[in-house]
Amino acid sequence: MDSKSLDLCAGILQNGSYIALARQNQAQKTALLVRLLSERRMPQQGWTDEQVRSVLAMFASMDSNNHGSTRPGSGSGSGGGGSGGGVGVGEREGRVWSAMVAERHSFLAHGVGRSGDIVAVQPKAPGSSLIQRLTHFMAADALRVAGASKTLVASAIVLPMATGMSALLVFLTLRTMRPAARFIVWPRIDQKSCLKSICTAGFTPIVVEQCLRGDEIVTDLEAVEAAIGAHGADAILCVFSTTSCFAPRTPDDVVGLAALCKRTGVPHVVNNAYGVQSERIMSSLNAAVEGGRGRIDALVQSTDKNFMVPVGGCVVAGPDKALVAAVSKLYPGRASMSPILDLFITLLSMGADTFRQLLAERKANYEYLRQRLAAWAETRGARLLETPANDISLAVALPDGVAAHATQLGSMLFHRFVSGARVVKGENKEVCGIRFDGYGSHVSKYPCCYLNAAAAIGMRRAEVDVFIDRLDRTWTEFNAVIAKRERGAAAE
Amino acid sequence: MDSKSLDLCAGILQNGSYIALARQNQAQKTALLVRLLSERRMPQQGWTDEQVRSVLAMFASMDSNNHGSTRPGSGSGSGGGGSGGGVGVGEREGRVWSAMVAERHSFLAHGVGRSGDIVAVQPKAPGSSLIQRLTHFMAADALRVAGASKTLVASAIVLPMATGMSALLVFLTLRTMRPAARFIVWPRIDQKSCLKSICTAGFTPIVVEQCLRGDEIVTDLEAVEAAIGAHGADAILCVFSTTSCFAPRTPDDVVGLAALCKRTGVPHVVNNAYGVQSERIMSSLNAAVEGGRGRIDALVQSTDKNFMVPVGGCVVAGPDKALVAAVSKLYPGRASMSPILDLFITLLSMGADTFRQLLAERKANYEYLRQRLAAWAETRGARLLETPANDISLAVALPDGVAAHATQLGSMLFHRFVSGARVVKGENKEVCGIRFDGYGSHVSKYPCCYLNAAAAIGMRRAEVDVFIDRLDRTWTEFNAVIAKRERGAAAE
Amino acid sequence: MDSKSLDLCAGILQNGSYIALARQNQAQKTALLVRLLSERRMPQQGWTDEQVRSVLAMFASMDSNNHGSTRPGSGSGSGGGGSGGGVGVGEREGRVWSAMVAERHSFLAHGVGRSGDIVAVQPKAPGSSLIQRLTHFMAADALRVAGASKTLVASAIVLPMATGMSALLVFLTLRTMRPAARFIVWPRIDQKSCLKSICTAGFTPIVVEQCLRGDEIVTDLEAVEAAIGAHGADAILCVFSTTSCFAPRTPDDVVGLAALCKRTGVPHVVNNAYGVQSERIMSSLNAAVEGGRGRIDALVQSTDKNFMVPVGGCVVAGPDKALVAAVSKLYPGRASMSPILDLFITLLSMGADTFRQLLAERKANYEYLRQRLAAWAETRGARLLETPANDISLAVALPDGVAAHATQLGSMLFHRFVSGARVVKGENKEVCGIRFDGYGSHVSKYPCCYLNAAAAIGMRRAEVDVFIDRLDRTWTEFNAVIAKRERGAAAE
Amino acid sequence: MDSKSLDLCAGILQNGSYIALARQNQAQKTALLVRLLSERRMPQQGWTDEQVRSVLAMFASMDSNNHGSTRPGSGSGSGGGGSGGGVGVGEREGRVWSAMVAERHSFLAHGVGRSGDIVAVQPKAPGSSLIQRLTHFMAADALRVAGASKTLVASAIVLPMATGMSALLVFLTLRTMRPAARFIVWPRIDQKSCLKSICTAGFTPIVVEQCLRGDEIVTDLEAVEAAIGAHGADAILCVFSTTSCFAPRTPDDVVGLAALCKRTGVPHVVNNAYGVQSERIMSSLNAAVEGGRGRIDALVQSTDKNFMVPVGGCVVAGPDKALVAAVSKLYPGRASMSPILDLFITLLSMGADTFRQLLAERKANYEYLRQRLAAWAETRGARLLETPANDISLAVALPDGVAAHATQLGSMLFHRFVSGARVVKGENKEVCGIRFDGYGSHVSKYPCCYLNAAAAIGMRRAEVDVFIDRLDRTWTEFNAVIAKRERGAAAE
Repeated sequence: MDSKSLDLCAGILQNGSYIALARQNQAQKTALLVRLLSERRMPQQGWTDEQVRSVLAMFASMDSNNHGSTRPGSGSGSGGGGSGGGVGVGEREGRVWSAMVAERHSFLAHGVGRSGDIVAVQPKAPGSSLIQRLTHFMAADALRVAGASKTLVASAIVLPMATGMSALLVFLTLRTMRPAARFIVWPRIDQKSCLKSICTAGFTPIVVEQCLRGDEIVTDLEAVEAAIGAHGADAILCVFSTTSCFAPRTPDDVVGLAALCKRTGVPHVVNNAYGVQSERIMSSLNAAVEGGRGRIDALVQSTDKNFMVPVGGCVVAGPDKALVAAVSKLYPGRASMSPILDLFITLLSMGADTFRQLLAERKANYEYLRQRLAAWAETRGARLLETPANDISLAVALPDGVAAHATQLGSMLFHRFVSGARVVKGENKEVCGIRFDGYGSHVSKYPCCYLNAAAAIGMRRAEVDVFIDRLDRTWTEFNAVIAKRERGAAAE
Repeated sequence: MDSKSLDLCAGILQNGSYIALARQNQAQKTALLVRLLSERRMPQQGWTDEQVRSVLAMFASMDSNNHGSTRPGSGSGSGGGGSGGGVGVGEREGRVWSAMVAERHSFLAHGVGRSGDIVAVQPKAPGSSLIQRLTHFMAADALRVAGASKTLVASAIVLPMATGMSALLVFLTLRTMRPAARFIVWPRIDQKSCLKSICTAGFTPIVVEQCLRGDEIVTDLEAVEAAIGAHGADAILCVFSTTSCFAPRTPDDVVGLAALCKRTGVPHVVNNAYGVQSERIMSSLNAAVEGGRGRIDALVQSTDKNFMVPVGGCVVAGPDKALVAAVSKLYPGRASMSPILDLFITLLSMGADTFRQLLAERKANYEYLRQRLAAWAETRGARLLETPANDISLAVALPDGVAAHATQLGSMLFHRFVSGARVVKGENKEVCGIRFDGYGSHVSKYPCCYLNAAAAIGMRRAEVDVFIDRLDRTWTEFNAVIAKRERGAAAE
Repeated sequence: MDSKSLDLCAGILQNGSYIALARQNQAQKTALLVRLLSERRMPQQGWTDEQVRSVLAMFASMDSNNHGSTRPGSGSGSGGGGSGGGVGVGEREGRVWSAMVAERHSFLAHGVGRSGDIVAVQPKAPGSSLIQRLTHFMAADALRVAGASKTLVASAIVLPMATGMSALLVFLTLRTMRPAARFIVWPRIDQKSCLKSICTAGFTPIVVEQCLRGDEIVTDLEAVEAAIGAHGADAILCVFSTTSCFAPRTPDDVVGLAALCKRTGVPHVVNNAYGVQSERIMSSLNAAVEGGRGRIDALVQSTDKNFMVPVGGCVVAGPDKALVAAVSKLYPGRASMSPILDLFITLLSMGADTFRQLLAERKANYEYLRQRLAAWAETRGARLLETPANDISLAVALPDGVAAHATQLGSMLFHRFVSGARVVKGENKEVCGIRFDGYGSHVSKYPCCYLNAAAAIGMRRAEVDVFIDRLDRTWTEFNAVIAKRERGAAAE
Repeated sequence: MDSKSLDLCAGILQNGSYIALARQNQAQKTALLVRLLSERRMPQQGWTDEQVRSVLAMFASMDSNNHGSTRPGSGSGSGGGGSGGGVGVGEREGRVWSAMVAERHSFLAHGVGRSGDIVAVQPKAPGSSLIQRLTHFMAADALRVAGASKTLVASAIVLPMATGMSALLVFLTLRTMRPAARFIVWPRIDQKSCLKSICTAGFTPIVVEQCLRGDEIVTDLEAVEAAIGAHGADAILCVFSTTSCFAPRTPDDVVGLAALCKRTGVPHVVNNAYGVQSERIMSSLNAAVEGGRGRIDALVQSTDKNFMVPVGGCVVAGPDKALVAAVSKLYPGRASMSPILDLFITLLSMGADTFRQLLAERKANYEYLRQRLAAWAETRGARLLETPANDISLAVALPDGVAAHATQLGSMLFHRFVSGARVVKGENKEVCGIRFDGYGSHVSKYPCCYLNAAAAIGMRRAEVDVFIDRLDRTWTEFNAVIAKRERGAAAE
């Protein structure tokens, strides 16, 4: 509140001292805002809802759709237009018909970006533009809190699209620099949207099979090198590696791939979808670029999977500010601000301290889940696969006898409100026109059928207990069902 | 936003001109706030939701529960407490556990008032106190927009209690000035809560029967005078008259009563529950006190019925600031701010222009309802009662034949989603220990049974059409049911 | 969602199995609601926001202002009125003009109660009435979770008024049963609103001075007995005792008072304002009525102080259901639902487990605060008063030298964002027309000046640390200021 | 609410008849939902906020992140996980950390789509999937309400990306069908994001200059045909025409282009960005495809510009369901649901009747703006350009003298809170590597400099008055500034 208004307030209360205290408090809150605007990082301690709302209100009031503050005669929604206020005679004035919709966006209506660039300041919406830029700064900071070095993450942008579409935009950006490239070398991971992002962008994926090392599925570095050699580096848009994945696949050997890419002059895009939550993955990414030893052009990572917001955003980051900027400049037109706003609110409210704590809890939950799954497996004739290189996801090899009925186990768990547990038995399948053997298991022939479970950020330790309990009860029922079915089959 | 922050914003956007415009816009919004704080009246044009939220955020940030802006490690809700922020070591610190609850109160938690006085500034909550005071000023202004003279409404307060409890507090206030008084003279109106407010306050009501004038039920001024005479003015706490009421009762003759009260030295409290919406009632109240010709001590009026907020508040106003202040000073302790906040938001958002328009629409709807009811009645053997002195409520006399089944008609309407239509057939009944003949019809023997309908503020013209339509269809069914029942009775 | 709609959903998704799961999930959520409706207690585990909102939506949709679901042509706010929907022709139809206001009340607009009784079902608002009743049940349960026996709390109601006004209503209720009573016997506590509730209700307080026992200020049982004797039991409306209070006053000897009241036939009302959070106080209240050994007629307790909601509600409870019901029946007219809704949301969201945990944390914080204050006092020439009977509030005796400047210390702390710490030095003062010596310190002459601090529910351990730190820094500055001032005085 | 719960409610209220009415009301509300689910169109009358929230709550409760309804011990946000509730052991469980964020998404967290397809049902989120599908159906209906024939709009999808990115996705879809195509034929429009969507998608735009017809800038059909001929139809991905645009450019001759495309076998994509609001444009689009006379493959249109929601969504529609489906199937991965939710809420709340009314008002506002601008121009030596074919945007030719200072006029208007008015004076400029003469004016040499203003949906008539008033005052100041500057220049 401005000084004149505060004086008037003192007059209304007929008491200056309460207002003096309010002034002092306001100064303190302003200091918090100033710190955000000058340091441009996540606050150490999260902000209260009151402070977040307050600052959102300040930014919203800067946008042209909130010029003027008097309400038209009728209609709901925001939209200015009083005699002293804003008047819109353009085709896009941020008018919002529904008050409920205006409210859920805190009166921000203009989205982000302008025709030129998704991070360009939108003249009608400086407040929205500020929120966007601060979110970019805070996202970069959050990656660093999670372990990224300044070399690895020189800058970051948040795109209001999920990882698949964002990877696609990165590919389109690289194409402007490598017009002759037609292929993307892709160490196999059986997840549709990354394959699709390659094909939709108009490139031909060169699928490089992984190899087995004990229980683990790992990158076949030589095969990648061979693939590059076979087509020639110039024909390759990039290597597209993956860190976070379901066990027994492990994060790709980004150190090796980065070095190879550097050596061959091929760009390297890392699908780090939910890798931010793993210190181990972040460290290997740091190592990959440290001292210029290897090449990573861009990291794409999901906002929902790493920062616990609704699905819809992606952080694109990398060691080269120019490349990150090029991605933003390629985006045609404006975009939804909603996923950015979610991240803005969340990072401010959470603060670095709580984020660190969530990361530590996740690590502890992984360890706890590992132990409980191993113990459970032992008692049930199953076996926890040894996949230490994957510190998010775990896999339990199921006894041969049940493999034939595997999908039913997954379905039974889902109907008992266990979501995310998947029973995997590779199948031969065509995806995006490419034939995959053993699809679902990341290699053509994985020796066994297994059950996946992961410890992701935000999981609570109590969930592990409930999971093991339901798993065990489901397992018993499942075996009974199978036994009955087999008796039935035998009787025929 | 403060100037330093705006400079930093310009730095982030690398563009000063957008921020210059934001500054200009901020100045305009500040001007709106300054006008509110200095004029202390409803704005002419309502404010946008964005502006209302913005100003609420400013006030909320002044309260001690919002000192500091960093979030404790865990838990939801507001409640400050970071290293730079507020620390509470009292028994009442405005901590709110549920974030959902904190949000619905816009982070205002301390209520209003302090032990001394419901309008005293609460040291922990200057922001809440300011909202309260501004609401009082705007409520007084709203009464004037609705037609009250400055003589009639010298000041107003909004109590977070509905009219019954507020009238009770007014009585308790008058008692401190008239310790010998034991009676309240009350021109009969068959509405329980006002009778109850008399009894609960510990006074004995002297019920003065009304008299008939044509179809209308009107104040029996001589009987009121006789009642005062019978007990002696000193024994009378006040005359408690009623303006807004169901036809065929009409607003009490406040001009006559005010003059009588002035003459006899008896205070006069007016239950103006929903009378604010009637220009006619407001004019007669003005007339009652104009030029010192009569006496009104306090007006009590419902916030929900006149200003379209949820039930729970009451505006107490009157020509004597000291009396209004005395009411507020009698209130023991703090109180909920919620009904005050509702009115604050509503009056700011509505603006005087829209309020005037709503009042004009109500008047037109009354006229439309009157015409349509009259026309309907004519075709159905019923008759619209002639009650021009009541310009809110109407009554249609029902044919004698149906009177015996009257309650069923009301119930049938309610089950057809017509609420507020009441079929009235007085009955003998005891209320608060007092025997009433013809209870419900405001006099001991009203000549007929009738159906009530009212045109209240916020009603839409289309509702009148739907009402008449459903009434007619219900009427047909109702007559069929009665006919059948009577045939059945005859057959036995 | 009804079964037909679910079938249509399956048709839209062209997949029955997802809907089967949705049905199953719905059944589980319904089971939670059924448990609430049948057990009528706080849930053990708190509900998610989603579940709370869902159930609120169900209740809101029952109220007549939400009949019909189509929007009028223009205007904001709720208010039904489509061709199939509700039509209102009454004077109070729950129309809400502002969409922002409608939303903050979750579309509940009719308040609670009807003319007869604040807990009577409101025919236009069965949903609101249900929320009210469930809140009453859950409030009774919450008191029991906090330690109340079933004897002590046979039933409870939540009034949408704070404790002062609620105590007043209890007094008015007792008056209907004891028409001859004129006095209320009141063991002194220097808190204005309770004294005011006595006077505003029209009774004469008989102030009974407390006595000292070591550092503690305790009930003078003999003086209370003498006071009753002096006026005669029939002239006494009730004894009005207080449990929760600032140290060194201790909770009144409710066991002794209850026995005395039983013996003399005088009602006993307990101001248990924030006593729910103290197991010790709840135990002594249990003991007071156990086995019929003593008499408590009503307990009044604040909702905000005990349950962390915004100021505005009060739980009135007691061993006699009839008395509690009588209080509700005396309330004239309808009332705001807002404080009840806050408690409803909070108790559902919190659950009994978390409430227990909050109570346990409070106890631990009290102990921690006690230790830290004692240690601090020792190093600064002050002394923690020995007041073990008060397990919420603590007091530190300040050195004689500083007593003269005591108020400044309090103010300095407030300006350092420490709220609730009070420096007390009794003064002679008239309150409600009664002369008090040493007002503020609960007795006419307390031997020293002291500083209060309390550990209330919702306080966080970290706040204790910050408090001690600021106290110490303030103390240093304060002493410097005094020293300077005294040097100045000496120089003159 | 289920039947058992309703019975329990009756028990709590000790009254069955209120619950009977609630049941009846619930049946009516259910009927509304059933109608939506079976008719799959915008409701005729908009729904109340209460009904919208209620239905959103029902859908949200179906999603797996809302399985279970008890709150974890601590933490905010949604996220299930009680003993009876959902347990997540996947990498993406819809956990939302911030309660504020969870709330703004009505507890919908999973976004839409799955790896395969943006309209595929998301198994973890059937509720979200239903909202998405219903939004698609309602969007198609809304286009028809705005005038589209069933031939023109066989189906529609809403993409959570603005028009630029959505056009890009349409191009990528067409590429899968026309792998040899490298060019997009593009009748020039000087708007960056559509050009960019072509280039970013990897195609080479063939810019076809427009021609002048009187004041109007119109499609040069022959030049388009020549361009197709020059490169061969197979090399052309599509013709990308534009309807809505700033005057004096007029909507492209979609009838002629559609016929040409049909004849040459070239796909035709129409950028109908804000054309939905123009009956004239919709009619010409209908005409273009009627009776198979021409070819339109896809229409892309902005949600914010046509339906008054925040920026971020696009409706892709067309006569061929298979093509629309192909676009959705190309989308890699999940996507934000937020823009879809905005449209869902808005279309439900608005209803077809109000949408029609908004369209009619826009038309009237255009006419009013046209008249007032013409009148103003006449008095100021300017001239309204004759552009009847563009019924959204208008242009006023400015006197030659001021053209040199044109940009300043635009800036002055913006600083007077007039947004959307643009002063256009073409300049030579390179965009996306292509050289444009007279960029900004849609042709290489438009004879004059002009000022644009548009009448878009949601504009209020009063805004026209304020605009003309400010324009006139700005004009005066602007001329004074120029005169002064010229005097200064002359003096040197």
